[in-house]
Parts: sequence; structure tokens; C-alpha cells
Amino acid sequence: MTARAERRSFWTWGYVSDEPNDAQRQDAARRLAGRIGEHVEPPPVPAIDEIPLPPSRLEVPERLAPWVSTATAERITHTYGGHSLELLKALRGEFDHPPDAVAHPRDEDELEATLDWCDRGGFAAIPYGGGTSVVWGVNVPPDANAAVTIDLDSLNAVLEVDEVSRAARIQAGILGPDLEAALKPRGLTLRHFPQSFPWSTVGGWVATRSGGHYATNHTHIDDFVESTRMLTPRGWFESRRLPGSGAGPSPDRLVLGSEGTLGIITECWLRLQKRPVFRATAGVRFPSWQGGCDAVREIAQAKLWPANLRILDPAEAEFSAGLSDEYALLIIGFESSEIPQGANIHAAVDIARAHGGEVDDDAILVDDGSGSPTGRRGAVGAWRNAFIGVNAGLTAGLGLLADTFETAITWDRWPDFDAEVRERVGRALREAVRGARLSCRFTHVYPDGPAPYYSFSGIVPRGAESERWRVVKQAATEAVVAAGGTVTHHHAVGRMHRDGWDLQRPGPFADLWRAAKRSVDPNGILNPGVLIDP
Amino acid sequence: MTARAERRSFWTWGYVSDEPNDAQRQDAARRLAGRIGEHVEPPPVPAIDEIPLPPSRLEVPERLAPWVSTATAERITHTYGGHSLELLKALRGEFDHPPDAVAHPRDEDELEATLDWCDRGGFAAIPYGGGTSVVWGVNVPPDANAAVTIDLDSLNAVLEVDEVSRAARIQAGILGPDLEAALKPRGLTLRHFPQSFPWSTVGGWVATRSGGHYATNHTHIDDFVESTRMLTPRGWFESRRLPGSGAGPSPDRLVLGSEGTLGIITECWLRLQKRPVFRATAGVRFPSWQGGCDAVREIAQAKLWPANLRILDPAEAEFSAGLSDEYALLIIGFESSEIPQGANIHAAVDIARAHGGEVDDDAILVDDGSGSPTGRRGAVGAWRNAFIGVNAGLTAGLGLLADTFETAITWDRWPDFDAEVRERVGRALREAVRGARLSCRFTHVYPDGPAPYYSFSGIVPRGAESERWRVVKQAATEAVVAAGGTVTHHHAVGRMHRDGWDLQRPGPFADLWRAAKRSVDPNGILNPGVLIDP
Repeated sequence: MTARAERRSFWTWGYVSDEPNDAQRQDAARRLAGRIGEHVEPPPVPAIDEIPLPPSRLEVPERLAPWVSTATAERITHTYGGHSLELLKALRGEFDHPPDAVAHPRDEDELEATLDWCDRGGFAAIPYGGGTSVVWGVNVPPDANAAVTIDLDSLNAVLEVDEVSRAARIQAGILGPDLEAALKPRGLTLRHFPQSFPWSTVGGWVATRSGGHYATNHTHIDDFVESTRMLTPRGWFESRRLPGSGAGPSPDRLVLGSEGTLGIITECWLRLQKRPVFRATAGVRFPSWQGGCDAVREIAQAKLWPANLRILDPAEAEFSAGLSDEYALLIIGFESSEIPQGANIHAAVDIARAHGGEVDDDAILVDDGSGSPTGRRGAVGAWRNAFIGVNAGLTAGLGLLADTFETAITWDRWPDFDAEVRERVGRALREAVRGARLSCRFTHVYPDGPAPYYSFSGIVPRGAESERWRVVKQAATEAVVAAGGTVTHHHAVGRMHRDGWDLQRPGPFADLWRAAKRSVDPNGILNPGVLIDP
Repeated sequence: MTARAERRSFWTWGYVSDEPNDAQRQDAARRLAGRIGEHVEPPPVPAIDEIPLPPSRLEVPERLAPWVSTATAERITHTYGGHSLELLKALRGEFDHPPDAVAHPRDEDELEATLDWCDRGGFAAIPYGGGTSVVWGVNVPPDANAAVTIDLDSLNAVLEVDEVSRAARIQAGILGPDLEAALKPRGLTLRHFPQSFPWSTVGGWVATRSGGHYATNHTHIDDFVESTRMLTPRGWFESRRLPGSGAGPSPDRLVLGSEGTLGIITECWLRLQKRPVFRATAGVRFPSWQGGCDAVREIAQAKLWPANLRILDPAEAEFSAGLSDEYALLIIGFESSEIPQGANIHAAVDIARAHGGEVDDDAILVDDGSGSPTGRRGAVGAWRNAFIGVNAGLTAGLGLLADTFETAITWDRWPDFDAEVRERVGRALREAVRGARLSCRFTHVYPDGPAPYYSFSGIVPRGAESERWRVVKQAATEAVVAAGGTVTHHHAVGRMHRDGWDLQRPGPFADLWRAAKRSVDPNGILNPGVLIDP
């Protein structure tokens, strides 16, 4: 029934073919055992058809049966998103609140019929793109009468390409790689590469305001949206395709970040790029984290708009890029389809050096337009590979707690913010885990502030993961919000970040959004519990 | 009672000191008479205290009296915005629907008391910044029980400047020049220069999503907003100050473009620039309008991000910049506080020349950082002066109909769009006026499309201005919307563009916005009739 060539793994990121095998998991366990000095054994992966599920509370009407299923495998693979605690539950065979049915509508008529069925029955309708939410954005609320997950995987085509304006009309269910494959023959690219890129969809990116490849200037998917088309229980909400407009409040900005609470996004016009051929890259070492951060600020404020401007703190630089732990690493990258980027990289490196950055002249790589990649060697390449290689499955269930939280803060508050977050989260982490690690990089940078991305990890007793995670996560949320940051910069609110979001949003926002939602979703069926109380 | 040093003119743009005197108006009339071959006489300007007004329907409570007035001059100067038909009514002494009272709250407590008075009484509350709306955004609805215009002119301070992040907390009622004067000693600038800049306010810019100085990349005020603070009848709606965020739907984007329907904006954190010292400018002539437009597209798509990239069609180039009417004129300008801009201007000129653009090498002006202006000579300077010198007062009441409409459209549809708009509007114009002129320039340019700005003018019988204007405006709205554009790119919706906006917005938008509005403004007092029916 699914439109994807491959079935998604129900217990780790990616597809069944991405799952590590038993030998790989045993090997990872042995390495971890060596590090922590005690034996660890990877738990067995249950067989998908032996997992006990509560029976479906829905009977699928015959006319919907061609695309709506209550099969166990469907319900299991759509119970969870991509957060590690969810995947741990999955590995343990705990599926207390699966959807009662999963729909794969193959066209808009089938989507309308599906949503109408949910609306009339009062079933929770949960839009589902690639299932990579790390904020509990695709779960069935425990108090739902019944729930239908609506998987957009069959609405996955590039419908039109406008090569003159460099834009395309794209269906929401298309995966990142399929989109890029469709655009490549025309020399075009979206160049929006969130970390979930291989497994996430255009609709998911728009619904959650994902952060992509570009570290400066146009960072969120928001910046690439020309128009959106979304089905609500009260009809189609479609904006006009425009390159820019100041007419009224932007309708697209109501869709962007709506996280499935207003409707189901079916397609968008997105702005594209010509594929870059001019590139320039440098990896600059900084003996001081703060010196590196100051360089980043100045490069961002010079409005050179590098495609990449990511700094890793010493811990992260050591872990991800193999540097000695005394150095922070700043990765600067420029790219263009039309203009050589040598002048830009040298201007940026000059600023970096003025702040104590170290890079050999011959390590500044400038591609003259022949198209050979510049960013895949040395420290830059090592970092790139660490970024691309997400595989939580290897260590799943071994008692290794690892997660991230990301935020944004203005520069004036940055060093204090960093110190306070590290102090509060570090304290909670050391109490909750053994072998605590806490590190930071910037994923995106604005002229007025960075988007810091913190990673934490440590060893916890098996079975205590959830409880220990909550202690650290709560400390992180409290620290970030108290110090003036946002509870998330590009991972979305979902159900996970409701407490932080409720503290940081304008007071009347919840009432306003609830009223707006009721106007298009009077029965409150769409993704209840996300963003606001129903 | 007003906080401004000078009183706004009630019948022309700007202040009383901006008004032309009788000799200047007679001179303008003689020049027009020479052009049209018949005698024209400027109508007398009525004395403000002799204009008949309907009596105020409100009695101001004593506790509000220090900042709320029902004085005739106050009511007259707050009846109209800046559209020529309004100003013509003003010149004729026609003030059928003035506000019943005008408030100038001096702090947030006084603003709260004012809005509370309106809410309890059910009086329309009309937020008022600089009064430069050209879309009937500050008028009293004829069916209001009573109306209070709330002028923010006393909330006009720069409250905080963050030089590290380059941002400032600014009160909504500050005028453009006062803002720039406050920032200049710190070497900072907002560099947001809408055409109304001398007389409009930060709050007005945010409420209407104004378009400013930058022709590419960051064009609307939206791009400079870090956070907003807005008073609604149900409390304060304040967003968190952040350099970027993907947490939920952006609260600021609900405020931006709300045009006074949700609340009264009192302050914002806005992103600033360091004052530019590196500049580069070129004025490029094109024998073909389409060739020039193609060059603009390619420069925008090369992502050089010029601060200025404005092309004038041959009619406009002749009128505004003194070129022969065979040539289109493209003005390219780069600026930076940190980076020399010579490479960028030459890259842009290379693209322009490849499309037939003509410019002498020694007319490409590059400022090495000494700070001397480059854009104030030759054709570029002539255009700049024409842009800055708004003075509708000179020809007011002489039967000269002159107005503009502006839009945006993707490049793939551009040449056809232009042809269709000129055909339909041209036909209506020739039927409605003598000596019809219709011309076009781009005010802003996106990689995926331009924002064309059309100007039209002609001579009509005095007294027929409104009727003839409606014929042309309706043709323009119909043509623009039918051909896929937006009814406005940066002039806002107001009451003027309701018909076009209703056609272009998503179907359920009006219900959604009405529901959102009711949640914060249950009595529907805020700027009724703007954006949606109450």
C-alpha cells in the first residue's frame, strides 16, 4: 500500500535496509562495554508481526479500503517519529497507542474522503510525511477516541518546473533525495538539506519550518516557499504563487509551522537554485571558542552570506572532525552557480584570522568552476561525514543516552547564555548519567545572533533512559528559556516542546491559534495536542 | 497635544511647512495649463478652523482628557491618509466621517486606558502612525457608532540599542528621520526607506509590511523584525526577541500585515546595519525594455544581492531621469560597511552588458571606503531626486489624476503580465483621461520574479477625479489579479484593495482571520473594514 520502494524501519532511523545487523550491533556493544567497563548486550529486535497491539477501534469503510489499512505492520511503522525514546519503546515492542488506521491517499480526492471520514467520526487525523519528527509530532494522543495517520507518501511528484523563475510545484510527500533526483536533470536543486533529508518530506519541512543547508541568509524552508496548498476539514487553503508580497498577513506564514494543526499540506511552489559550480571552502582552527564565535559574528554581519558558517566547539571538533580538543573548528563555505567565490572566502578568512583563527593558505580551497567538490577533504570532510552518518540503531538499547537541543539567541547575550546553559545542563547531566558529554556547534548564523546546537550523551542504567532523559531535557528547556533563547530553532514544537513554547510565545497566542484552528477544524481532529491544547 | 514638532498638513503630504504656497501652486497651474491648452486655477485651501465637521459623538472622560481631544483641528488632520482622492476631499473641505476623538497616549498605561474606553463603548479604534496610508487604512468607517483615532506620535523613542547584535528596541510612533538621527551617532542605521519615509513610522511599517530601500534579499520590513509588542483589547501580545526561530507559527508574522485589525503595535526590536562606507553604482541604459528585464533577472538569480536593482521603462526613464525615451535605465547599487564592492558591481555590469546594456567603464562608480556618495550624479542622481521629491500638493485640485499600483509576479509570467496589464489599464486610462501616461519600474526584485510598480496619470474634468480614478483602478486590479499578480506588493490592503485581496487570498483566510481577531478583539473595534469584513 505504501508508495515508497522500501518500508521504513520501525525501530531505527531510515529504512529496513538502513538497520544494522546483529553482528554490527554486537560489535557496537563490545566497543561500548570497553569504554564503560561493563558487559552490555544489545536487546533483541522483535519481529514486527509478533508485536502485541491494541485492536484497531476503526472499521474502514469499503470505499476507503483501497488506501486505508488497519494492518499491524502499517500501524506499527506509523506509531512513532524519530526521537530516541520513541525508538527505544519500539525496540522493546511497546506500542500502547498506535494509530487505528493508516491512510495512503493517492490523490486529492482520496485525501478529501479520508479527512472527511475523520471529521465526521471525530477521529484524530495525524499528518505524516517521513516520520522523522524528533519532537513527538506524529504520535496518537492517548485520549483520542480513535486516530488515523495520513501518510502523504503517494503524493510525491514534482508537478511542474519553472526554469525561468527557478521554482517548482512539488507534492508534499516527496522525499528529499527523490526531489533532488527529479530536479538534477534540469540543472536545478532546492539545496535544502536538513539532517533528516534522506527520510523526510517537503510537506514535513514546511509544516515544521525545517532548517536546511544554508547557514546564513536563507536558512529555514520558509524562505523558499512561494505558495502552499493545504486541505482543511473546511476546504482548501491555497495561497497565490508570488515571488514576494506585503499584501495582508502572509497566508503561507500561517501554514509554515502549523505542524498539522490546521490542515494537511499537499503541495507547494518552492524556489530553486541552479546547481553551484563555483565553490570555496576553508576550515579554520581557533584556540579559543569565544574567539571563533566572535569571528562568526563578524563574518555574518559583513553580509558575505556564506552557504556554510558552522563552528564546532573543541569537544565537538574533537569528536566529529578529529581535531585535538584544544581547538574549535570553523567551517566556512561559499557556493554559486554564476560567480567565482575566491574573493568571498578570502574576505571571510581575513576576518577569521583577525580573531585568532588559523588556516594555511593552501588549505583555502577555491573551485574555479570545474565543479570538483572542495568540502570533502581534511577536517571539513570528517565533519561532513559525521553529520551525514546518522545511525542511532547501532547503540539502541545499550543504555547510551544521546540527544540534542537547539536554540537561537542574540549575540549580546551569547557568551552568558552559553555559560548558563552549560552550567545548568551540565549539572543535570552529571547527576543523570555516567561519562557525561556536552558539546555545542552553530548550525545557522544570523547577523544578530547564532543558532547554537547542543549535543549531550552519557551512560544510564537500561530501563532508566526515559526518566534520566526527562531530567536533562527539563534542565535544558528551563535553561534555554530562562536565558532568553527559543526552545527550538528548527526541530519544531510538537508535543515535546509544549512547556517551553507555552512560556515563550505571546500570552494570547494560544487562544488566537485555537480560534483560528476552530475556524477550519471545528471538530479539533487535526494533530491534537501539538502547539496548543485542543 | 501632539508630540511632533510640526503639525501634519491636512490636505497634502507632509507637514504644514511642506505645503506649497499660493505662488507655487499658481505657477504649477500655469505650467499645466500650457501643457493641456486650457486655463486651470488652483482651488483655494480652506482655513482649517472654518471647515464644517459633524459634531463629535463622544464625551471624553476626564481621566483621558490629558491625551484625548475632540478639537476640530485634531479631528481634521486625522480623517484621511495620504491617497490623492482623500487629499482632494480634504482640499475641498469635505470631512463627512472624521474621528470623534483623537488620542495621543504618552505611555502604555494611557494607551491601555484609551483602548479600554473604546472597547467598553464599542467605538472603532483606529491606530494611526504617520497617516501616510495610500490604501484608505486610517479612515473612519461610515457605519461606526463612534470612532477614536489613536495616534502613536508620543511613543516615539529608541529605547535600547544593542551594538553587538546590531539591533534596537524602538517605539512604534517614531518617524523615519527621527529614528535615523537617533542611530547615527552610533554608526548604525535601519536603512529602511519607503517612499513615505519622512512622514511614516516604524509601527506603520510593521503593520503594513512596508517595502524599503533594499531592492533585493531583504526588502520588506518583515526581514528586520526580531520581535514585536502589541496591545490588543484582551491584553499584550509580545513575541520573544530572537535572531531566528522555527518554533511554531511565527507570532511576528501575525502582527506583520495585520494593519491594525488585531492590536496596536507599541514597539519592536529591529535589526540594524552598520552605516555603509563601501559603495558601487552604475546606471546602465538598455535599448530594449525586455533586455533590461532579463538582465535584472539574471543579476537577481546570481545572488549578488545588490542594495539597488531598479529598472525604469523608457517612459519612466525619460520622465524621472531625463533619458531619451528610447532607453530603459537600470540602476545598480551595492553597499557594505565591511567589504569593498568593486567585484560585485563589475559582475553585475557584465551580466547587464551581456543583455545589451550600455554603460561606459568610467561611469561605473566605486567608492573605496572613503564614504563619498556614488549614486547622486548623472542619471542615477536624477532618478533619486525624482523619487525623494514627493509633492502632490503642487497640482492638487487641478484635474491631474496621478496614481500608482504595484504588484509582484514570477519571471515566467512577466512579459505577458506586463503586456496584459498595459493593454487593459491603458485602454481604461485612455477612456478615462486626456494625455494618458502609463509607465513601469521595478522597485524590488526577487530571484523568482520582480515587483513592478506602475504609474499612471492624465487630465480629467475637475469633480470627476474620483469616478475616473475608479475606472482605471478597477481595470488595474482586475488585470493584475487575473494575470496572477498580487493586488499590492508593499502598499498594504487597507480598505482600497479589499476586492482584489478577497480574490487572491486563500478561501478560508477571511473566516480564519475573523476568528483570530475575535479572540483578541471580541467587540470588533480595531480598524473595522480593513482586510476582512468585521
